[in-house]
Order: sequence, then structure tokens, then C-alpha cells
Amino acid sequence: MKSLLIRDIVLDNKPADILIQGNRIKSIGRRLPKNAGRTVDGRGLTALPPLFNCHTHAAMSLLRGYADDMRLSEWLQTRIWPAEARFSRDDVRIGARLACLEMIKSGTTFFNDMYWHGRAAAEAAEEMGMRAVIGAGFIDGGDPARGAAQRRMLEEVRQELSGFSSRILFAPGPHAIYTVSSESLRFIKAFAGEWGLPIHIHLSETESEVNDSIGAHKLRPAEYLDSLGFLGPEVFAAHCLHLSEREVDLLAASRVKIIHVPASNLKLAAGGQMPYRALTKAGASVLLGTDGCSSNNSLDMFQTMKMAALLQKHAANDPASLPAPDAWAMATAVAAQAFGIDAGRIEEGRLADLILVDLDRPECAPGYNLAADLVYSANGYCVDTVVCDGRVLMLRRKVPGEEEIIADARRAARRLANA
Amino acid sequence: MKSLLIRDIVLDNKPADILIQGNRIKSIGRRLPKNAGRTVDGRGLTALPPLFNCHTHAAMSLLRGYADDMRLSEWLQTRIWPAEARFSRDDVRIGARLACLEMIKSGTTFFNDMYWHGRAAAEAAEEMGMRAVIGAGFIDGGDPARGAAQRRMLEEVRQELSGFSSRILFAPGPHAIYTVSSESLRFIKAFAGEWGLPIHIHLSETESEVNDSIGAHKLRPAEYLDSLGFLGPEVFAAHCLHLSEREVDLLAASRVKIIHVPASNLKLAAGGQMPYRALTKAGASVLLGTDGCSSNNSLDMFQTMKMAALLQKHAANDPASLPAPDAWAMATAVAAQAFGIDAGRIEEGRLADLILVDLDRPECAPGYNLAADLVYSANGYCVDTVVCDGRVLMLRRKVPGEEEIIADARRAARRLANA
Repeated sequence: MKSLLIRDIVLDNKPADILIQGNRIKSIGRRLPKNAGRTVDGRGLTALPPLFNCHTHAAMSLLRGYADDMRLSEWLQTRIWPAEARFSRDDVRIGARLACLEMIKSGTTFFNDMYWHGRAAAEAAEEMGMRAVIGAGFIDGGDPARGAAQRRMLEEVRQELSGFSSRILFAPGPHAIYTVSSESLRFIKAFAGEWGLPIHIHLSETESEVNDSIGAHKLRPAEYLDSLGFLGPEVFAAHCLHLSEREVDLLAASRVKIIHVPASNLKLAAGGQMPYRALTKAGASVLLGTDGCSSNNSLDMFQTMKMAALLQKHAANDPASLPAPDAWAMATAVAAQAFGIDAGRIEEGRLADLILVDLDRPECAPGYNLAADLVYSANGYCVDTVVCDGRVLMLRRKVPGEEEIIADARRAARRLANA
Repeated sequence: MKSLLIRDIVLDNKPADILIQGNRIKSIGRRLPKNAGRTVDGRGLTALPPLFNCHTHAAMSLLRGYADDMRLSEWLQTRIWPAEARFSRDDVRIGARLACLEMIKSGTTFFNDMYWHGRAAAEAAEEMGMRAVIGAGFIDGGDPARGAAQRRMLEEVRQELSGFSSRILFAPGPHAIYTVSSESLRFIKAFAGEWGLPIHIHLSETESEVNDSIGAHKLRPAEYLDSLGFLGPEVFAAHCLHLSEREVDLLAASRVKIIHVPASNLKLAAGGQMPYRALTKAGASVLLGTDGCSSNNSLDMFQTMKMAALLQKHAANDPASLPAPDAWAMATAVAAQAFGIDAGRIEEGRLADLILVDLDRPECAPGYNLAADLVYSANGYCVDTVVCDGRVLMLRRKVPGEEEIIADARRAARRLANA
């Protein structure tokens, strides 16, 4: 079994070495055997768990900066959807690789994705060495024939992804209650149950989604999903900005995971506020995500942690709301646990996912409080080295092949823009 | 006169060389004479104006992470003020140097400061090669004797700073209407007029400031300043979160410069919203600042541009509000003009202040729109090289003496924390 020794790092304020065997942390201590297959010199670096990006559309990094500062419907209808309609399977792979590169370079080793051409995104994550839940975007627009085709697609992607490593998981990705029929939502729930899969959905992003749901079903979005028997601990619901008290209780009671996406919510002026205090008080897990690059436009989870913490203080009119250590936990240990990934903490026996950060930089000085420095002041460039599943993905800020990944993305973008 | 040739950069999408003589841009073109005193190879880099941080308390970088996530009065009274009371003149210089280092490394060459020990902050800016308006913090608490002492302090600091280079300007810094008497505010207005100085003040940061002003003066804060004859084009007012329509009109009509400080406002839950659209519609200049490190905690103006743009979209419920090019202008050309600094644009004859950015990184790919990439996706680490007043302050991300600056800050912080 391959082994990796990370020497002379700081872990929990103490000097330590970390010995990794295969994809797990074998031991943590001082003076570990020096005969590992590979050694990384960690002098001056601090070991931390990596970040988990719990809601994104990786391939959309190809549309970063393609259309900004526009009203939502115009933005989607005149710019984003026409461009996406031109995406080939290869564009999805190229865009997802660019996203993986940006995430690795900012210390993220896991992403919860939703897009089309799931196999292409899976290939990107697999090749780049990341963990991912590949959510197969599902839209039937209430059309039974399209619904049937999408259900076949789900099974196809599920089978395709079963050939990938254990780092790549599959999820049905019903887009939202207003784009997927109740029949398909019921099917997806049963399908996920049958195969033990998570489900990735957008929920209560805008007020019009709420109003349309009340108009169509006489129920608010989470109530409607509850009426279908859809809610459950395997459901990962992104946004959740316009929730009633009853919906907060429903989501928490059914142990749905809430994914907060602050930058995208502000940039698209989605309105409302993710009710962090009410949700956590009711016992819900709240995770963090960047959303896709066309609505953020950054995949740096350090920035997302800060935005989440600051936005909650503003919304709650209380600077003590969502303190830095909680934001850090949401992006690391809480997220790992929610997805059932045995990482998120650096401990013997756990999966060997970790980052080495270099705090020797002005924005991390003088260094009174690591959590505050990480959440409020650092950005992804403090990450020096990234390890995922026992494999070094970035060493001294170098990711193999990055020039080619960027060049491929530029070529694909020129083609999409000129098509 | 010393000359500097920056070769083979990209400027406005075209290849160019920039020849600097002394502290001004002498010529921009191709095939400029290669016999300059010093040459910087700009291949692969894009030249842009540097960023202007229009409201900060540089020395407070020594308190980054010292106290966070606390309610405002408790935070000030139990943590920040006692720590600041222990600041020596030397601590101010050490903290301001750390702030200068962080600003240079994120592409900022100008800061509008407010603090005590003005000479110490001026020394830091002078030594680091930045431009600064050193605002001498003025608080009299309504005490005539203290007011008299503070007026003498103003004159002393003014004289001390007159010996510095043209990069260092001086400003009286009356802290706020609730900490400075009306007599002193009138004195400061006259003093600034006599010497042609800007004035730097906090205005309408919290609702209690507004309520206290109404209680004491039967006027809202900007109305009260107007009643003293204080408002004018030389006044730089930070925050401006709780303004009435009448105050918006007053500030715009008197050409007061508004400094928006989004991260600090969110982090301290200051409430309200800087009324960007109303202010700009009324003709006011709105600039951007980070605030001090204890309430942000970052001095990276890239982050501040993004937060400002996103927050306005959210507040106006309109994703078209404060588009990326406007945020970029607020942090560059608009700010330079407001402070009467002949920079903010890269043009022949102007002061030689510029940054070279490296866009060859995943977060700036594929590169459809430079303004959107800079404001929404980049962070200060895209800045490769910084030139201010014809002098290279950072080359290939290296600033001379940075290890020592960080080490000094850590030593000073340990002393302050253990005092």
C-alpha cells in the first residue's frame, strides 16, 4: 500500500507528523518512521481539514463573466440558457476541470454538483483527484414523455458512474419543484431510496417560486415536497431563502440538509434570508456552497464562509450571529458528516483528506485566532498543499496540468461565445 | 531623473510598453527606448490602475482576530478600547506597516487613514512607498480642555507631516458627531479651510447615532453638520448607512464624498443601507473602503468591491444595481479624483501609480469580461507587481522586508495581548 509522510506540520497548535497509508491517516505523532514512499516537508505549514463546496454547477465555470449584472429572467433567457444549450459533453468536462482546478487551488476537495452530462463532470473530478457527488440535473417541465426520458437518463448515469472510484458518488438532481413534475419527484425519491443515493435540489430560491407553489398546490415549496413524501435525510436542498416557520420545522424534523449559498443569493438579488438561527435551533444541518460560476463568480470557499458569517450578522442584526468557528465547521466537519464522508477532521483512521496552509502572510498576522483569520481574512491562496484520499493534488500551489486546463477553457469559451 | 521601463504589458487589450520618468508616466507605446534606468518585464501581465482604500485605521491590523463575533458595545468596551489604550507610538507604526504590506500585496497604493500617533502611520506609509491621507483622530468628548489639547495636537501633527514627501497628506479626523463638540467641529472646518486639507469623519454608522443626534440637536447627523456649516467638498464621510432623503440631498449638494465600507457594516451589524442609487442619482461621489482590521478583517479591496456590488444588488432587489465596472471605478479613478491625486488612470503625464495583474489563473478564466473577473472573482493575489509614484513597491509578489514586518507585528501583538 502506498504511503505518504507529511513531516513537521502544525496540527492543533502542536508540531506533528502525519503518516498516510493508502487513502487513510495511519498515525499522527512525532518521529514517525521516515521510510514512507513519499515525504512532504510541512515546515511552516498548518494542517487543516479541506473545504466542502456543497452546492455548485462545476461546468458553469465556462460561463464566468459571460453575463453579469442583469435581471434574472433576462439573464437566464437571453444569455445563460442559450449558451448552455451549446455546451457539448466535452465542454462540460472542460468547464468542470477548470472548476476542479480553482477548487483545489483554494483548498476544496469535495463538491456537490448538479448539471447535465454527469459522466463528463465525473471524469473531471476523477482525473483531478477530488471527491464529488455528481448530481444528474433532472427537468421534465411537466411533460410525461420528457419525464420518462429523464428517468432513463438517471439510470444510465447511475450505471455509468458505478465504474468510477469510491470518490465519485451519484445523486439524482431534480432541478426544482417548478421544473419537475410531482410524478418524477416521487420516482426520484423511490429511486434514491432503492440505491441509497443523496438527492440534490434547489428549494425556495425566489419569492415567485413560493407564490407559484401556493398557486399550484396551495402549499409552500417545502410543504409541497412534504406532501409528496419527498423530504428526508438524504435530501440536500440549496438556497432555502423564503421559508415559513412551519417549513423550517418540517425541514429540520425530516433532517433535510440545508445548503446556504450567500454570494449567489446576493448577486442575483434572490431576496429573503436563509433562516440560519431558526434552522439550527430546530436541529437542521446547514452547509455552505458557492453555486455555479455564472452567479458568484468565485469557487473560493474561504470567501463563501466570510459572506455567510457577515450576512447572518446583518440579517439577525447581531454581530454574534454565525461566529467564525461555526462557519469553519459548516464548511468542513459538518459537511463531511452530512455527506457520510469519513473526513472533515484530521484523525487517525479517517480518510486522508487535508490541506496545509501557510499562515506566514500579512492577512493572517498577527495571528490571535485561527478561525477568525481563516474565515474573515484569508482567501484560498493561503492553501499551500492539498491531499485528498491519500493523494497529493497540489504541492506548493502547483497542480499538474493547470496551464493546459486554463488554455482548454479559453478555447472552449471562444467557441461558445462565437457560436 | 530616474526612469523605469515596463515592457510588454497588456493595456486596454493591446500590447504596450510604459516609460516612467521620475514619478510620472512619460510615454506609453511600443518600442520605447530600452535604455531606461530599470526595466520590468511585463510579459503575460495586464496593467491597471491601483486600488484606493478610502477608509481604514491602518494600525488596527495589530488587532486582527483579537476580538470578533461580539456585540458592538461589549466588543468596544471590553476588548478594542482597552487594547488600543495600550498602543504605543511604536505599535502604531508596526501595525500601520503590516497594513501597508497587506494593502500593497493586494494592489492598493493609497489609504485614507484615521488614528492616533499620525506621525507613526505617516512614517509607515512613507517607508513602504504608499500614498496616504493621515487623518489625525480627534475626540474631545465635549470637554473644552480636552478640545483645546486636541486642537494643539492637530497643529502639531500638521507641522510634523509637512516634512514628509508629497505622497503623505494630512487631514483632521474628527471621529464622529457624538465624540466631538460642535465648537471643535467648527474649529476643524476652519482649520481645514485655512490649510486646504481634507476632513475625515464617521457619519451615520448606527441608528443610535441618529437617535442621539435627534435627541441632542433635533437634527439628524448630516443635518446637524450642515447647521454647523461643516459640510463641503473636502469632507470624506465614512459609512452613511442611516440617511434620510433630505440628508442624501444635503450631502450631494455640498459635494461631500461618501465612503462605503460594506464588510465592516455587515460584520458589526450596523444596520441600514448606504443609499447608493439615491446618492449617485443626486450627484454624490461614492468611494470604497475596508475599515480597520478589527471590523473586517481584511484590507483586500478586491473583496470590498465584490461585497459592495453584491450588497447593493441585495438591498435594491435588483441584480443590475452597482455593476462591476462601477465598483471598479469607485475603487480607482473616482477615488483618485475625489482626493485630487493625479492617478487612477494609466495615461501619459499622470502620476506613475499602477499595478500589473496576472490573469493566468483559474478564477480569471476563461476571461470574457475583465471588470467582472476583477470584481467578482479575483482577489488581491492576482496582483504581481505594484508601482507607486514611479517606484516599484512589489515585484513578482515580493515586497522587501515582509518577513520582518510580520515578525514585528507578532511580537507587538504578544505584548499587547499579555499586557
